Amino acid sequence: MQTTLFKSVGIAGIGLIGGSLAKDLRTFGLVGRILGWNRTLSHAERALELGLVDETLPTLEALVDASELIVLATPVDILVKTLPAILDRLRPGQVVIDVGSTKQAIVEAVAQHPNRKQFVACHPMAGTEKSGPDAAVENLFRNRFTLLINPAESDPELLCRVSSMWSQVGAVLATMSAQEHDQTAALLSHMPHVLAYALLRTIKEAERNQALNARFAGGGLASMTRIAHSPISMWRPIFKQNKVALLDAIDTFIKHLSIFREVIAKDDDERLSELMK
Amino acid sequence: MQTTLFKSVGIAGIGLIGGSLAKDLRTFGLVGRILGWNRTLSHAERALELGLVDETLPTLEALVDASELIVLATPVDILVKTLPAILDRLRPGQVVIDVGSTKQAIVEAVAQHPNRKQFVACHPMAGTEKSGPDAAVENLFRNRFTLLINPAESDPELLCRVSSMWSQVGAVLATMSAQEHDQTAALLSHMPHVLAYALLRTIKEAERNQALNARFAGGGLASMTRIAHSPISMWRPIFKQNKVALLDAIDTFIKHLSIFREVIAKDDDERLSELMK
Repeated sequence: MQTTLFKSVGIAGIGLIGGSLAKDLRTFGLVGRILGWNRTLSHAERALELGLVDETLPTLEALVDASELIVLATPVDILVKTLPAILDRLRPGQVVIDVGSTKQAIVEAVAQHPNRKQFVACHPMAGTEKSGPDAAVENLFRNRFTLLINPAESDPELLCRVSSMWSQVGAVLATMSAQEHDQTAALLSHMPHVLAYALLRTIKEAERNQALNARFAGGGLASMTRIAHSPISMWRPIFKQNKVALLDAIDTFIKHLSIFREVIAKDDDERLSELMK
Repeated sequence: MQTTLFKSVGIAGIGLIGGSLAKDLRTFGLVGRILGWNRTLSHAERALELGLVDETLPTLEALVDASELIVLATPVDILVKTLPAILDRLRPGQVVIDVGSTKQAIVEAVAQHPNRKQFVACHPMAGTEKSGPDAAVENLFRNRFTLLINPAESDPELLCRVSSMWSQVGAVLATMSAQEHDQTAALLSHMPHVLAYALLRTIKEAERNQALNARFAGGGLASMTRIAHSPISMWRPIFKQNKVALLDAIDTFIKHLSIFREVIAKDDDERLSELMK
């Protein structure tokens, strides 16, 4: 039997992640009322139309005041800017989570905040290249990791309720430090996104120079450039906030790619086979 | 109404491409008997078990002698080695096609062959990372390009029948020179494969150094490394045969990636947005 974990949830940013979470929270009966706010008004209206939320609120402040659980699903630059003021407004018993892809900047931004314990930093490792309320899908988090970051900095009882929520929408939980998270995310997600963007750019430039007709591409290219269709407004701030680890990951990749290049240039079949294993 | 284009087809290499073509040729009633040969005997047996072929033959020579249309779906190093001897054996009216991913080496290998006109060089831009007869699927070629290479070097009537076959299994046809093909394939397929292998290598090394736990990866990494699970025996010879164009494509990619790196390092938001567009 499912139990209602939060009487009301307010979702700031009702796109792919926020909207998908709203769907599951409703399906599994984990929350009472679902409220929404979105910087882009048309997205808020669309979320209401799709039934993702019961009501939209005109400001982030109103959303915060009206919600027991506040889910911040905005781009990470906006997150870092808004979280301190959100924590300022909290009453006891309220809890804020984020779902951002970078963690050091956000935990540093609120490290000394008196209400720090009411914030749980989360990163569900799920998503697609789509965005906006229409991209919301059911079961997005099922069997995917949701990482809980610097868990000791959150109130244990609130942490338990947030963990329970993620578990009940099917996520597999793991904890790590913000630093470990950002290095992991740089290698597993942020750097691969840069590769996809750079690959798409390489192909587009060759097309522009009429060296190539990209319509001949097979499925491999599509699968390698899929994530380069993710929204710029979301990814540019991620690259910026995780710059140090990201540049390091790019350099590591270039080192490995250069080894492949050298081995191919030398016709070193044996070593090439080893590298491809 | 479909008509039988070839009384018998012999498929050398009954894996993903050869097996999928066999399925479609049968489904659409385009050929009479389907014969098979495979260097790996267990694959030939499995293809028979799956009903991909009506009969397997013990040698490539026996397959060639018994088939009106011969489809060579072996790795490209074996292709280049075997095609001249296959052309030696041909009787009038027989036609050989290949489905290899590189084209300059193969057309050069038979450029002066007296039976050159009985060979049509083909490259269906379709596939997955899977291999072997169990990877064969229906409609693999539907709505995907099949490139016909140096078409003027083939007998026009045989070229027409081969074109008709590809069209009837749903492929979209285009023609180009071997050189243009290899440059296009280097950029759209071979270089992206090297990136996928290098990315997988980067992640595996980080895991080995315990800097990372790759099980936290989301769908983006999976989609970018999918094609790195393609068989080495197929891809290593492709890299080798298309070395010049491939190294050039890798260098072009590294140039573009380095621009991204620099723009991220400099926090040049405006330029980064332009590059990501």
